[in-house]
Amino acid sequence: MIDETHDPARTSWVESANGHADFPIQNLPFGIFSAREGGRRAGVAIGDMILDLPAIADRLPDTVQDAIAQPTLNTLFALSAEDRRLLRKALSAMLADERHGKAIAPHLYPAAECTLHLPATIGDYTDFFVGIHHATNIGRQFRPENPLLPNYKYVPIGYHGRASSVRPSNVPVVRPNGQRKAPDADAPEFGPSRRLDYELELGVWIGPGNALGQPISIGEAGRHVAGFCLLNDWSARDFQAWEYQPLGPFLAKNFHSTVSPWVVTAEAMAPFRIAQPPRPEGDPAPLPYLFDEGDQAEGALNLRLEVFLSSEKMRADGVAPMRLSSGLASNMYWTIQQIVTHHASNGCNLSPGDLLGTGTISASTKDGFGSLIEISAGGKEPVPLPTGESRTFLEDGDEVILRATASAEGRASIGFGECRAVITPAP
Amino acid sequence: MIDETHDPARTSWVESANGHADFPIQNLPFGIFSAREGGRRAGVAIGDMILDLPAIADRLPDTVQDAIAQPTLNTLFALSAEDRRLLRKALSAMLADERHGKAIAPHLYPAAECTLHLPATIGDYTDFFVGIHHATNIGRQFRPENPLLPNYKYVPIGYHGRASSVRPSNVPVVRPNGQRKAPDADAPEFGPSRRLDYELELGVWIGPGNALGQPISIGEAGRHVAGFCLLNDWSARDFQAWEYQPLGPFLAKNFHSTVSPWVVTAEAMAPFRIAQPPRPEGDPAPLPYLFDEGDQAEGALNLRLEVFLSSEKMRADGVAPMRLSSGLASNMYWTIQQIVTHHASNGCNLSPGDLLGTGTISASTKDGFGSLIEISAGGKEPVPLPTGESRTFLEDGDEVILRATASAEGRASIGFGECRAVITPAP
Repeated sequence: MIDETHDPARTSWVESANGHADFPIQNLPFGIFSAREGGRRAGVAIGDMILDLPAIADRLPDTVQDAIAQPTLNTLFALSAEDRRLLRKALSAMLADERHGKAIAPHLYPAAECTLHLPATIGDYTDFFVGIHHATNIGRQFRPENPLLPNYKYVPIGYHGRASSVRPSNVPVVRPNGQRKAPDADAPEFGPSRRLDYELELGVWIGPGNALGQPISIGEAGRHVAGFCLLNDWSARDFQAWEYQPLGPFLAKNFHSTVSPWVVTAEAMAPFRIAQPPRPEGDPAPLPYLFDEGDQAEGALNLRLEVFLSSEKMRADGVAPMRLSSGLASNMYWTIQQIVTHHASNGCNLSPGDLLGTGTISASTKDGFGSLIEISAGGKEPVPLPTGESRTFLEDGDEVILRATASAEGRASIGFGECRAVITPAP
Repeated sequence: MIDETHDPARTSWVESANGHADFPIQNLPFGIFSAREGGRRAGVAIGDMILDLPAIADRLPDTVQDAIAQPTLNTLFALSAEDRRLLRKALSAMLADERHGKAIAPHLYPAAECTLHLPATIGDYTDFFVGIHHATNIGRQFRPENPLLPNYKYVPIGYHGRASSVRPSNVPVVRPNGQRKAPDADAPEFGPSRRLDYELELGVWIGPGNALGQPISIGEAGRHVAGFCLLNDWSARDFQAWEYQPLGPFLAKNFHSTVSPWVVTAEAMAPFRIAQPPRPEGDPAPLPYLFDEGDQAEGALNLRLEVFLSSEKMRADGVAPMRLSSGLASNMYWTIQQIVTHHASNGCNLSPGDLLGTGTISASTKDGFGSLIEISAGGKEPVPLPTGESRTFLEDGDEVILRATASAEGRASIGFGECRAVITPAP
């Protein structure tokens, strides 16, 4: 799988790419952007710049021409893995070799002057629950006697989320109104959420997908993953506790979800594949339809996930965002291939541009918990901020920033860019 | 609201419309069809015929020209209620007055020779749970000690379903594979569902909708309902019992959902509005954001819902489909306007072409139960068929047919047409 596009010695004539924390030439993520002039179009992040793909179409393979001409990446996601690799190779070559600089440079835009949009029209958005430490932590708060249900180690638990309210980074999140009921109240009341939270998740953009009624085998699942992003599954914990039985979360989570706008491709992530951590002694083996030796051997990702918080006061005082947590994406009980195969195992059809969320990924210790309800122990342990403020849940004006970095011995690290949004008051 | 388009004495020069059980001139539902020649286009059902809308565009109002020219009804759903009324009025006039016959007749196609497609591109599909008798019956089977949860009478419970696997009538349903666990088994197994069921639901097609962060008040909710259909929310009960906690139904229901292809408009249903049945003594009043006097006075529908079953042997023996149940849509604890308002109450944005399901609508007695798991008491009481066969759950080759008829004193009844599909074996 590893080719010259991953060579850590490879540099670009786009100077800002060399040593860039997120977007060195080894990454080359895709997105949909607009500059001061022209409409939405496909681009590639390289250092601090964005390369306009339709503008350089004549230098790219024939098989990708239609895909890069669209105002969304759905058609690009539908490409075969082979065509995606050819595109990556062509882009890497022209951004590495300075002889292309003169022709290409006019089609680079400073990212800081561009707007990033949702990369695809999302057909369906499904959220999973594969962060086992999160499932245990949150299960303990909602069901103290029964944190991890008996199906958890057999079924990659998931549910359908709301596609219409997924937004890219930087779109403010309006605090939702909803029903909540205090444990000692006779009846619920309706009003702004008092327990607004973030959830740190990895997002998966689906590639070619399957026809209705035709499952995807575990060995084939990887071919249907086009790329990855960060996903903040904003959650109103007070609404969730009251509404979630018996049919699961609904208004507690469908008011807004934020994704990072750059799609880090499966090809870019290839060098960061690691073995799925072994299951704890005594846990059942996955059922045969979910088991594949190759998937166990290299189905997980060596990816560090971080969450930062910045309050309005912190920004006013010039205080940098404070890191709330840092943990590894390998704290997933199921691999991404397993959730894809499970999703399609009943014949449910996945389509290019569908979005899967892993569910909140928490580490086993508090410094790696992926939500405030975990970090603050359900609101009982406030988190001190550098300004003297503290937080149990999010307040208006708070900004949450998610980051991710993939690294491997002897490889150039790559990052996902930021997934950020600020909370605005309820209407 | 009642105008000449509802006059029971009104007849059409399309002879088959007069006295038609579903599509007299008082109905005029919209759909997307294709005939032997030409692509997918918008049409109106009139008797046994379909009127090709783009072909008669020059006789329709300017404001609907764009809407009727599309290969889906999403743009038509986005029209204001006023524009939809103008379109209805124009169609009713030209189909009533035989002077139009010579010009219009060439654009009528026999429905039996046409294919009906999904009427819209579904952005999001949400399923509710407002049939209180169903909620009680099924709750008793999944949670004997606790059939109706404490939130039920405050929260119009709903969850997100799968948009990609919604299909129009007549597309066969492939029996899904999945995980099920017998109560006395140590571990689950994977295989074809043994408890495949139908669910009788009313479907709601969303009209204009709202922007993210901007709720829809209960008084305005009706303007965002474009029309209605029948919805069969096929369910694998064995998978559902094992997977549904804590995040709700997932693979048990997302493998296929069937809708009737004709959209019966909110305007056509206006004469069949009735008062919402009063809540039982002692039940709480809806919270203020869900309460509107007008909605209580005429927010329900006088609509009879029926389910028929036809086994392969019944069809081979020439035996007519057997009626399994007949009940009223007014067995809904919440009105359609209440579910629309609740859905958007947290700012979640609804869009033209979104599909809402009411959840299974059962009457209070067995002859009106809306699913086999209720009729067969969880598989304990087999249902005898006229061929000597019996059913607890659906078998391969079974065909399920849903029908609906709206009626009111002094009005012409209208129907929804059929929602039907046959079960095919698991792969």
